[in-house]
Amino acid sequence: MYVKRNLGWGLILRYAWINLIFFSGYAFVVFSLYHFLDWKFIDIPFQPLSVIGIAVSFYIGFKNSQSYDRFWEGRKIWGGIVNYSRTWAMQVISFIKTNDREQDHKIHTQLIHRHIAWLNALRVQLRQPKSWSLKENRAVEKLFDKHDERNASCNEAYNYVSMREFSDLKKRVNPATHLVKNQGVDVAKLKREGKLDGFQEDQLMSCLEEFYNLQGKCERIKNTPFPRQYGYFSKVFTWIFVLLIPFGLLNVFEKHLLEYTTDGMEWMIFLQIPFSVLISWIFTTMEIVGDNSEDPFEGRVNDVPMTALCRTIEIDLRDMLNQVELPKPIQPKDHILY
Amino acid sequence: MYVKRNLGWGLILRYAWINLIFFSGYAFVVFSLYHFLDWKFIDIPFQPLSVIGIAVSFYIGFKNSQSYDRFWEGRKIWGGIVNYSRTWAMQVISFIKTNDREQDHKIHTQLIHRHIAWLNALRVQLRQPKSWSLKENRAVEKLFDKHDERNASCNEAYNYVSMREFSDLKKRVNPATHLVKNQGVDVAKLKREGKLDGFQEDQLMSCLEEFYNLQGKCERIKNTPFPRQYGYFSKVFTWIFVLLIPFGLLNVFEKHLLEYTTDGMEWMIFLQIPFSVLISWIFTTMEIVGDNSEDPFEGRVNDVPMTALCRTIEIDLRDMLNQVELPKPIQPKDHILY
Amino acid sequence: MYVKRNLGWGLILRYAWINLIFFSGYAFVVFSLYHFLDWKFIDIPFQPLSVIGIAVSFYIGFKNSQSYDRFWEGRKIWGGIVNYSRTWAMQVISFIKTNDREQDHKIHTQLIHRHIAWLNALRVQLRQPKSWSLKENRAVEKLFDKHDERNASCNEAYNYVSMREFSDLKKRVNPATHLVKNQGVDVAKLKREGKLDGFQEDQLMSCLEEFYNLQGKCERIKNTPFPRQYGYFSKVFTWIFVLLIPFGLLNVFEKHLLEYTTDGMEWMIFLQIPFSVLISWIFTTMEIVGDNSEDPFEGRVNDVPMTALCRTIEIDLRDMLNQVELPKPIQPKDHILY
Amino acid sequence: MYVKRNLGWGLILRYAWINLIFFSGYAFVVFSLYHFLDWKFIDIPFQPLSVIGIAVSFYIGFKNSQSYDRFWEGRKIWGGIVNYSRTWAMQVISFIKTNDREQDHKIHTQLIHRHIAWLNALRVQLRQPKSWSLKENRAVEKLFDKHDERNASCNEAYNYVSMREFSDLKKRVNPATHLVKNQGVDVAKLKREGKLDGFQEDQLMSCLEEFYNLQGKCERIKNTPFPRQYGYFSKVFTWIFVLLIPFGLLNVFEKHLLEYTTDGMEWMIFLQIPFSVLISWIFTTMEIVGDNSEDPFEGRVNDVPMTALCRTIEIDLRDMLNQVELPKPIQPKDHILY
Amino acid sequence: MYVKRNLGWGLILRYAWINLIFFSGYAFVVFSLYHFLDWKFIDIPFQPLSVIGIAVSFYIGFKNSQSYDRFWEGRKIWGGIVNYSRTWAMQVISFIKTNDREQDHKIHTQLIHRHIAWLNALRVQLRQPKSWSLKENRAVEKLFDKHDERNASCNEAYNYVSMREFSDLKKRVNPATHLVKNQGVDVAKLKREGKLDGFQEDQLMSCLEEFYNLQGKCERIKNTPFPRQYGYFSKVFTWIFVLLIPFGLLNVFEKHLLEYTTDGMEWMIFLQIPFSVLISWIFTTMEIVGDNSEDPFEGRVNDVPMTALCRTIEIDLRDMLNQVELPKPIQPKDHILY
Repeated sequence: MYVKRNLGWGLILRYAWINLIFFSGYAFVVFSLYHFLDWKFIDIPFQPLSVIGIAVSFYIGFKNSQSYDRFWEGRKIWGGIVNYSRTWAMQVISFIKTNDREQDHKIHTQLIHRHIAWLNALRVQLRQPKSWSLKENRAVEKLFDKHDERNASCNEAYNYVSMREFSDLKKRVNPATHLVKNQGVDVAKLKREGKLDGFQEDQLMSCLEEFYNLQGKCERIKNTPFPRQYGYFSKVFTWIFVLLIPFGLLNVFEKHLLEYTTDGMEWMIFLQIPFSVLISWIFTTMEIVGDNSEDPFEGRVNDVPMTALCRTIEIDLRDMLNQVELPKPIQPKDHILY
Repeated sequence: MYVKRNLGWGLILRYAWINLIFFSGYAFVVFSLYHFLDWKFIDIPFQPLSVIGIAVSFYIGFKNSQSYDRFWEGRKIWGGIVNYSRTWAMQVISFIKTNDREQDHKIHTQLIHRHIAWLNALRVQLRQPKSWSLKENRAVEKLFDKHDERNASCNEAYNYVSMREFSDLKKRVNPATHLVKNQGVDVAKLKREGKLDGFQEDQLMSCLEEFYNLQGKCERIKNTPFPRQYGYFSKVFTWIFVLLIPFGLLNVFEKHLLEYTTDGMEWMIFLQIPFSVLISWIFTTMEIVGDNSEDPFEGRVNDVPMTALCRTIEIDLRDMLNQVELPKPIQPKDHILY
Repeated sequence: MYVKRNLGWGLILRYAWINLIFFSGYAFVVFSLYHFLDWKFIDIPFQPLSVIGIAVSFYIGFKNSQSYDRFWEGRKIWGGIVNYSRTWAMQVISFIKTNDREQDHKIHTQLIHRHIAWLNALRVQLRQPKSWSLKENRAVEKLFDKHDERNASCNEAYNYVSMREFSDLKKRVNPATHLVKNQGVDVAKLKREGKLDGFQEDQLMSCLEEFYNLQGKCERIKNTPFPRQYGYFSKVFTWIFVLLIPFGLLNVFEKHLLEYTTDGMEWMIFLQIPFSVLISWIFTTMEIVGDNSEDPFEGRVNDVPMTALCRTIEIDLRDMLNQVELPKPIQPKDHILY
Repeated sequence: MYVKRNLGWGLILRYAWINLIFFSGYAFVVFSLYHFLDWKFIDIPFQPLSVIGIAVSFYIGFKNSQSYDRFWEGRKIWGGIVNYSRTWAMQVISFIKTNDREQDHKIHTQLIHRHIAWLNALRVQLRQPKSWSLKENRAVEKLFDKHDERNASCNEAYNYVSMREFSDLKKRVNPATHLVKNQGVDVAKLKREGKLDGFQEDQLMSCLEEFYNLQGKCERIKNTPFPRQYGYFSKVFTWIFVLLIPFGLLNVFEKHLLEYTTDGMEWMIFLQIPFSVLISWIFTTMEIVGDNSEDPFEGRVNDVPMTALCRTIEIDLRDMLNQVELPKPIQPKDHILY
Repeated sequence: MYVKRNLGWGLILRYAWINLIFFSGYAFVVFSLYHFLDWKFIDIPFQPLSVIGIAVSFYIGFKNSQSYDRFWEGRKIWGGIVNYSRTWAMQVISFIKTNDREQDHKIHTQLIHRHIAWLNALRVQLRQPKSWSLKENRAVEKLFDKHDERNASCNEAYNYVSMREFSDLKKRVNPATHLVKNQGVDVAKLKREGKLDGFQEDQLMSCLEEFYNLQGKCERIKNTPFPRQYGYFSKVFTWIFVLLIPFGLLNVFEKHLLEYTTDGMEWMIFLQIPFSVLISWIFTTMEIVGDNSEDPFEGRVNDVPMTALCRTIEIDLRDMLNQVELPKPIQPKDHILY
């Protein structure tokens, strides 16, 4: 998640430089064919291009709006994880209270620490790349490689569950699922031991149900790409439009020159090159903005800051346990919070 | 569900080839009438076409957006099935725990296996074709026939319920409905036997209620086509626009040629043919993209991968039962996950 | 609900024929005034018409999208009725189980049959026409009159409640409301008799609460028209646009003819008549598509198939009661499922 | 709520007449400056106006869509009030049943009548005007003043609570809030007296919680205007566009006349005046349609018919209490249901 | 929150004056280069600008719509806080009722006052500025500085919790979280003491769960800016469009002048300056309107009036406790309610 109001132009260029060079070269070639080789026939009328342009704008608009929804849904889910983590801790601490203070504290710690383990296990599962993951140019990818958030390993879980549970988890297909199940087994056991009554068991089990819902929602977004027929044709149509633009401008600018400007100014038609680059950049940028929000759990510049959220929850929960040495919040790297 | 970032051009051509040939031929005929037979009167002005084009873009945009919502709702429902399947298993395993370990395990297995039977029964019911099912050209249909996911039979259920229950189910109108009812009857029996208390019965029954909701939501989407008046006119209007395009371009290109290009270049007007094909392809593709997401349970390229999801749940649940020989996850065929 | 992929052209013409004749005549008159009487001054420029056309497209788009939402919400509510009907039956059958099998079965039948009575009472209430109901031309209305689904009477309820209850219901303002209340009174009585415990009463009452919610949601859509200021101006603006179209085309086609076609071809301007009819038909059809989805419970071609859904639920529920002679599912009439 | 399909033209003129006169006069003045005083320089090109027109259409579209959502949310909330009122009555009647029939009936009546008092208290609170309330021209306001629904006083509550409770309520800041609280206190008292068990208390309290939610949602919409920066600039931009229209048309029509019409027809340019009025009317009407749905509880032509809904609920609830003399449903006045 | 129907022009100018001066100067410079220095080559054709304009309108429309959703979600959350605060108070007052009236009242007061402390703690946390907070020009910022709502300190909490609790809270990372936890611990204690039964504990704990949800939702919006790639490029594209506008108008107006106006009127081209300023102002204002709704908790002109809402709740709750000296509602300052 980018945490400054304005994107730095360094970052924007890092994404755009290849395209900018390509658009300039391409527009120059088109212009040269027309002007120097006198291939006057390659210009195309602008009117049908307008219709394509508007249709493409709609299409990109749809994609951007759905991509944003995927991001925002991802963020909402993690918001839900924050909320129910606090509820879980509050319920554990309020409900389990016997005369044996020490034993109580041990149970509190076990149930809350296993929850922290679940958080981190889930985060790490979500950060693994998929067959449809986005690849940007090397300049961009290098930045993320430097920040190194995309292949985190789950060493945090180490400290939060017992050795025996940990070695069992390593054999499981989906460790996060089993962590929640283990919570459920423990809660039912506490009920049978009389440390919880039926109402309290019910509430704690509802929390666990909620954790399964939240985990499953994350997995749904992670495992289902934005339908590729929508996403891919958005890119294809944008590029078709962008590649036709210089041909369309030839005509508009020429007509223009013929009608209104004085002689000896024919070189003015060069002006169409930056103009063509500008339009191309606007449309491809709109397209890329959507592309970069489609998958919100990848550890890229616009993704849900799961590492920071896990840490926030960890601090809150350990503060509730009255632990004193709390870890520090995660700090953004180059204005990106992961 | 297509699992690569970019669609292969082979797949795109498989869908588009007939249209591409048709558009080329059509544009050529229109052009020939105009140019060789000198039917100059058949051109039509482009300005009103622009307005139709923009109105059609809106209409397609609406259809695409609703089709996407139907797909995404379908995917969300199956996400919910994943989540509540885990909750069901967690509750069964946590709640039913007596001194008789073996008997417990038998009950766990029965309740969880019957749930797997329900999953597969539901999947198979949803994969049956409807009177409004989409038909693509033969090249596309052959691909799906090869992958053979559209008429699956429910042999999986065989292994997961007793013979007696199975033969009863075969007589029922809607077997999935009866599987959930049988779970309910068992849960209430366990309650009467004292193996569950009221709170726990309540929670398990809530799960079953949720399964009915999820099943019914799937059936709603399956049994209600995207309202045909919206879907069909979208296609009609798109084709009207696309069939008018070559007539509109005649005029624009001619004007163009008359005004700006030198003599002997009249053949340049041929350029309008690929341009016309391109616009036609863009608009029909936008339309087809929506068409292919309308019905998300058919076992086509963009549908909800129910087979893979059923398998994932099966693996998770049998892992929770500590079974050792787990089946393998479903693999995509030609990059399509079913 | 129309259940074929493509609308038949017979059905489309049934809706459109009056408009098509009118548009042709109107365009012919406008053209004649211009061409034969030489009223050259009646043409209007097309540019401002474009802006009106685009604004009108937006407006229609908004209306269509909201109309679709109303239909889809209606369908979702009836989906919810399907789901909770099953849950109700499952709970009744699971919970009420004593040693007296026969008595149990009688209670099951009573509670489930009264529910079927509620379904049909609700359906019939929703099918009554309102002061703002849509009226189409006679050809269309005759079709619906033939199918006779718009003024169904509630004779189905007859068979499903006792004579005494039936005669009480006939005196009530809103019989569906009282059927649910009677279920509630019965449930509380079963609780007092010890046939249900508190948890079970709680769950059954939640079902009834849900039925009130679902019934009330249907009534909300039924009793609140799509706000008339939105719906009516959509029609007014569309018709203003459509009536201006021939005047606007006069100019575009004339300019066209003057500039590009040879002499003796003036009659070519007649081409504008079919073109004008086509644009008019597209815009009015877009408008009508929305109109026909606004009120989803009327028993028209695009409405929620409540009769079929009631029958489906009835079959499912009586199958759960192990009744043998189940009624047949409702079949579509002329491809329309009611 | 307007309850006919088509708005009467009388009503439309009542809203529009001032604007229509103004637009005509304005267009005439602009035209006269141009034509008679020969201020040829005041015309402005239409192309940039098109872009403004389209941008303004978007903006109005957004406002209309959000206004509709506010209306529809208001209507949904009142739908919820209908549903939970019935649930409340059903629960009260089913749960509170002892051997003392008369005493039971007294409690039923007290809890249900106090609920009717709450309904009316809420309705009256919502009908009070706010500092941002819409003011239309006098002709429109007179209509509403005649129907007199905007400053209703809460005399209905008189009959439904005891004198002592009534005089306490009059001292409270928000009487509706205290009515619900009093229900809660009574319910808890019935529980302590053993007339309700824990499950039943729980369900009744959930209903009350729901009433607070529904009341609070109404208050949210009532107390938060549609954000004024969105609403006001929509009006400003529309008027800027509308005021520029005659200047833009000067040019289009003039060009038109110059090119295509014969001499002596210069007065034809007068045609632009009705055309200008028409465009202006369409855009301002679109804008006004949104304006009139923003605040759905004011007692205007398009608002939620709270008086009618309160009466409907009152009839239903008193029918459940088997009262015989039920009040009549509210009838629309001049096709407006309040 | 702005509480008048129409924004004052003083306020609008306060936001816009710098831009207006800049646009005028800029358009003048462009015009001068063209007209006085005769740099005729700097004009650009308007047709491609139209396409950019429409694409930019879409983009701004998307941003405005999402910003509005963020505001409205923020307002809904605070609406939820109002509702559940009342429910909390109702439950506390209804449930905790023993023979010891005085002790009851003490508990009521403690639980309700701590809730008021939580409200204010949350409000103050949400009003702290973030690294991506919007900065307007000095004239605007001075207004907010004067009203002084952006860095409120939490002295209100002082009066509502005991000294001991207060000094503990000051050491906590997130005091609001701990206030809710303390409520939970108290509720469980009251249950153990027999002052609440299981059902009642369950309902009170559900309320607390809801408070965590509401708090977490606020924090989600507060801590997640509107994704900067969407927000920033909206500004960039708008400004690119706006900076190109004068160049595009040069051409349109010139063509205009050449074709239709008499000699000696060349200075008429000056008219394009106000026209250019107008278009620029419309587009930048649309953009700014979105910008100002993105972050709804900052204490700016369009934000959620948390101070007023906290006060409203406080009055309602203390009125429920039958306290006599209630504080006054918050009044708007310069028509802005904070």
